[in-house]
Amino acid sequence: MATTDAERRHDPGLRGFASDNYAGVHPEILAAIALANGGHQVSYGEDVYTAHLQEVFRAHFGPRAEVFPVFNGTGANVVALQALTERWGAVICAGSAHIHVDECGAPERVGGLKLLTVEAEHGKLTPELIDREAYGWDDEHRAQPQVVSITQSTELGTCYTPEEIRAICDHAHEHGMKVHLDGSRIANAAATLGVPLRAFTTDAGVDALSFGGTKNGLLFGECVVVLNPDAVRAMKHLRKLSMQLASKMRFISVQFEALLAGGLWLRSASHANAMARRLAEGVRAVDGVEIAHPVEANVVFARLSHDVAERLQKRFRFYFWDEPAGLVRWMCSYDTTEQDVDSFTTALTEEMGKR
Amino acid sequence: MATTDAERRHDPGLRGFASDNYAGVHPEILAAIALANGGHQVSYGEDVYTAHLQEVFRAHFGPRAEVFPVFNGTGANVVALQALTERWGAVICAGSAHIHVDECGAPERVGGLKLLTVEAEHGKLTPELIDREAYGWDDEHRAQPQVVSITQSTELGTCYTPEEIRAICDHAHEHGMKVHLDGSRIANAAATLGVPLRAFTTDAGVDALSFGGTKNGLLFGECVVVLNPDAVRAMKHLRKLSMQLASKMRFISVQFEALLAGGLWLRSASHANAMARRLAEGVRAVDGVEIAHPVEANVVFARLSHDVAERLQKRFRFYFWDEPAGLVRWMCSYDTTEQDVDSFTTALTEEMGKR
Amino acid sequence: MATTDAERRHDPGLRGFASDNYAGVHPEILAAIALANGGHQVSYGEDVYTAHLQEVFRAHFGPRAEVFPVFNGTGANVVALQALTERWGAVICAGSAHIHVDECGAPERVGGLKLLTVEAEHGKLTPELIDREAYGWDDEHRAQPQVVSITQSTELGTCYTPEEIRAICDHAHEHGMKVHLDGSRIANAAATLGVPLRAFTTDAGVDALSFGGTKNGLLFGECVVVLNPDAVRAMKHLRKLSMQLASKMRFISVQFEALLAGGLWLRSASHANAMARRLAEGVRAVDGVEIAHPVEANVVFARLSHDVAERLQKRFRFYFWDEPAGLVRWMCSYDTTEQDVDSFTTALTEEMGKR
Amino acid sequence: MATTDAERRHDPGLRGFASDNYAGVHPEILAAIALANGGHQVSYGEDVYTAHLQEVFRAHFGPRAEVFPVFNGTGANVVALQALTERWGAVICAGSAHIHVDECGAPERVGGLKLLTVEAEHGKLTPELIDREAYGWDDEHRAQPQVVSITQSTELGTCYTPEEIRAICDHAHEHGMKVHLDGSRIANAAATLGVPLRAFTTDAGVDALSFGGTKNGLLFGECVVVLNPDAVRAMKHLRKLSMQLASKMRFISVQFEALLAGGLWLRSASHANAMARRLAEGVRAVDGVEIAHPVEANVVFARLSHDVAERLQKRFRFYFWDEPAGLVRWMCSYDTTEQDVDSFTTALTEEMGKR
Repeated sequence: MATTDAERRHDPGLRGFASDNYAGVHPEILAAIALANGGHQVSYGEDVYTAHLQEVFRAHFGPRAEVFPVFNGTGANVVALQALTERWGAVICAGSAHIHVDECGAPERVGGLKLLTVEAEHGKLTPELIDREAYGWDDEHRAQPQVVSITQSTELGTCYTPEEIRAICDHAHEHGMKVHLDGSRIANAAATLGVPLRAFTTDAGVDALSFGGTKNGLLFGECVVVLNPDAVRAMKHLRKLSMQLASKMRFISVQFEALLAGGLWLRSASHANAMARRLAEGVRAVDGVEIAHPVEANVVFARLSHDVAERLQKRFRFYFWDEPAGLVRWMCSYDTTEQDVDSFTTALTEEMGKR
Repeated sequence: MATTDAERRHDPGLRGFASDNYAGVHPEILAAIALANGGHQVSYGEDVYTAHLQEVFRAHFGPRAEVFPVFNGTGANVVALQALTERWGAVICAGSAHIHVDECGAPERVGGLKLLTVEAEHGKLTPELIDREAYGWDDEHRAQPQVVSITQSTELGTCYTPEEIRAICDHAHEHGMKVHLDGSRIANAAATLGVPLRAFTTDAGVDALSFGGTKNGLLFGECVVVLNPDAVRAMKHLRKLSMQLASKMRFISVQFEALLAGGLWLRSASHANAMARRLAEGVRAVDGVEIAHPVEANVVFARLSHDVAERLQKRFRFYFWDEPAGLVRWMCSYDTTEQDVDSFTTALTEEMGKR
Repeated sequence: MATTDAERRHDPGLRGFASDNYAGVHPEILAAIALANGGHQVSYGEDVYTAHLQEVFRAHFGPRAEVFPVFNGTGANVVALQALTERWGAVICAGSAHIHVDECGAPERVGGLKLLTVEAEHGKLTPELIDREAYGWDDEHRAQPQVVSITQSTELGTCYTPEEIRAICDHAHEHGMKVHLDGSRIANAAATLGVPLRAFTTDAGVDALSFGGTKNGLLFGECVVVLNPDAVRAMKHLRKLSMQLASKMRFISVQFEALLAGGLWLRSASHANAMARRLAEGVRAVDGVEIAHPVEANVVFARLSHDVAERLQKRFRFYFWDEPAGLVRWMCSYDTTEQDVDSFTTALTEEMGKR
Repeated sequence: MATTDAERRHDPGLRGFASDNYAGVHPEILAAIALANGGHQVSYGEDVYTAHLQEVFRAHFGPRAEVFPVFNGTGANVVALQALTERWGAVICAGSAHIHVDECGAPERVGGLKLLTVEAEHGKLTPELIDREAYGWDDEHRAQPQVVSITQSTELGTCYTPEEIRAICDHAHEHGMKVHLDGSRIANAAATLGVPLRAFTTDAGVDALSFGGTKNGLLFGECVVVLNPDAVRAMKHLRKLSMQLASKMRFISVQFEALLAGGLWLRSASHANAMARRLAEGVRAVDGVEIAHPVEANVVFARLSHDVAERLQKRFRFYFWDEPAGLVRWMCSYDTTEQDVDSFTTALTEEMGKR
């Protein structure tokens, strides 16, 4: 490859448990980008890679699926939610939902959406919880609940079963609401559940979802996947006006082809999940550390004392999730190694022993 | 590099004159991405590549410059314009401005911005043209003009001289307005003018600009460059709420380092410009074809009859700019070759001869 | 009536030609408000006056008309335009349209609407002018033109004939666009044309309109009148979320009943128009003053030198419309008297003589 | 007064306990409107009544107060909140706040505001409750908490003491947040507390408030009252772009003068409060009915069985507040009589006896 004026500025040996987007690009993904390079391709999604991507996604989500590559997860969520709602709509979601806590109000500000939040144990909504906000139909004073948005795997590292999602979709549809699934870590859920992607999406009644790529080894790029085309409108206009239309879209599309055409998506997610389980096992053996949520994806939430957490953060980068509560988050990625996990567990044991 | 499940689906020999974003990624840029890969880096812009990028941009734009990588040009424009305005602000721009004609209303819908457009010959504003909309100060019925937005090089392939930009900035500042420059093709302007980037930006009084990368050989990525930090607020919050915050930002930043640390930016732009000039010369020799705007960047606008245009489009992809007026656009990119240009000119001559 | 702690602070003898909303409330309107007072009525529009108002408007606009009282004209316009468009829509209007020049960007900021303006002589659009912006169908880069908005009588005091409006509506509908009419001064147009309101609205193909009351003697209140219910959605939700839902709506509704059930609307508008014609005749007799637009409603636009204008403004309040161009606006209202007009003409003659 | 074509369509003897905006206009208010009528006054707030209103409000809220009349309560809240926040701001409020539950998402959709809600007993926030959402400073992923909004008297009929509001204000200010008070029923709070308006607003540290008029006997109209001018910006532009600028503003202003210059505001509110207390006493004597919130303003919330509630609704109009929970709301207004209350209590007793 050609030389470049850029310099390597980082130590590739650096690792941590801060987030799965601290990891870089999977080599197979980088190879796919190189493959799609060269010559001219129509921009803004009329290229052959994006055309083919429809088939790639239909193999996973069924023949009605339509895929719309976008830049990032917030973009995917806000485009999808706009497509599923009217100007007077509201979205019911868990209080822990990424769209509520981590998107700087983009759903409200860009999409003009009202969020109706419900506190949900381990980040999982249920029909009963949804009902706390699913009322006021036709009352013009109340923003009209039009969508239920769930996250799979959740922000707290838990998974809905296909049956749980079906129950939510049935309930939402009975009330005339649609269902959006934030699948920022959808691959991790599929790996945990051991079922095809469509088992808990298309087949469970989900109308549209955000399919995450960046946290599973992509350079950048997410997709809105419409499972029920009757539930959305004008996706391409909404993507553009939401500033999520990539000009050289072939390079997003080919990444998703590389991820999804073979087994890379599942291999990477399964590995990250396994590392989280290994970490959880190690942590459980350490006295005085409490695991806060079921470990059903690639992340471990734990409660530990602030002094220990802070000493440990000096050795491995990770985040407090709820600092006053002493809740920390340890995230594994496709490139986390067994040795990473074991070193971390050892360090945790050492720091706990210093108390 | 690793094998991948993705397949090469396109013929890299395909070329055209449709847009500079039909081209792929410059090999040096792809090499830079590979360089920055591996290991963990803090996400959302706290990585070492983004930290270093500040220096890279300051070398071009002066010591006060601050750079904020984003996903795309519309995103860069709308983030910058929000940072420069208040909720009650308006933006004066040419009727041909990309923010007005090609962003599906994103400035209005995402940014809540009012655009005040002025018809401008060859896409270039002047203090006199600005004055057509620069009035109504303090009148609450009128959206308050707070920013003048110019494009350099313009959407019509022309360039402002540094003196012209200074006159606009001085005029805007006298009225309490700020100046934004849409630099989607800023490198082409610098190449044409033969001056450093700062000569017609920082030194001319521009407050903030959108720096284009994608059309000059990047995979994806643009930057908002703040030249006058006193003129903006809360850039990082506005970038996030506008859904333009990349999680693995190191891969945008290292591309810009590769582009700007050495001469790649200027080399690529100069080449694209030279190809447009060669094309213009070829076209001028063809009887019956009229060049519509001065050729001062990497694009040629021409008027020709619809039948010729349509036959020619079957041989080379390009767009009508104004179909009723018979105005077409031929765009050159960093990878356009002399042979591409000459083949096109030959084809044009042939099709004109068939009338 | 009861005494009150408020004091009369103004001289009711004061008059001017600044605007028809400088005038107060017509006595019959005030009487109607008193009539509707007392006891309890369901709020937010479920009262008997609002129920009856449907019939009042249907008598004028036909059996499919639906009326939605709101607070003010900007509110009426923005609610109506939202109801007629999707999130990705644009509105084609004259460059002189109130929605473009006098609403501080509310259509953009509240409605997320993109305005596409066309310069139109005397403020009147035509199918040909509309075509300057009616293109780019299905192109996601271009905000989709979905509505043509015209003003009747126009901001420049001119009127469309029923045939002109029908031509616009036919043209708009052929392109899949809807037609909104800003009827802030619709009564003045009907008075000039000498036809029923429906002749140039329902019967001409207008889909929805803003019906002005305040400028024709009401205390406050305007109405969105939907003529084609198939063209709008969710009016009541859009009215509420646009903050235009009055709690004690009976008092808006009864005003419109008093205005429209008998002849008050036409009587007041005809009088204001007659005063403008008288004023125009007087002005035409004064050497050196040029009338700028046909006088077809209740306003006269004239060009005169700045020194005369400024001296005259010290005697009668009125506004410059375009100060650099020396264009002034003299507006008549339902309470303008012949003596007001004659005094003004005399003053104008005197001031012109001093040059 | 002049005759009118409108007809009296309602029975002024009708009463109920549905809402304080079911009541009509206080005769003194109507008289004040008539007083301000006649002749010409500058529109859009440059009239003498609005000028004088500044003094009226300053007498109550101190010499720095600035008053901005608007159309309705939602408008007042959204204008005030925009003035207190930046584009990236969030508002902390109780889950029962009107801005969250009854404004159809106007704060989000018109103001681009993110609401962060906290469940609060009896609708009252505390510093501790505020802290549940007051975090994430400078974190671009989190909408920045910039305002705490409280309601006084609350939507649940309770009152904050001046000390409680001061504690909230101090706490908010320590964190760099501002305080907005939704005073839709502020007069009822003052009447209950027996203190001047400024005791729990200006003197307690509130930065801006919405001052309710409609629910206290006005025809229409509310005011934004800025107590700390340093905390807001561009009020007049925000009012206009939010479609809350009344053209004949003198008629809002003179109503507030009539309300506030003498004792009408307090007299009316005290009466409504007394009727609510009388109602509460009557209700407490009825076996099987539970009062749900302290009765500290003009409303009683009670829990009773659905069958009783529904039978009672056939005799007196009132609303369920939370239908599944059997929670009903009985609201008193300035024109509620002792006989109204006693008839209602008798009816309640009768219906309870039928179980």
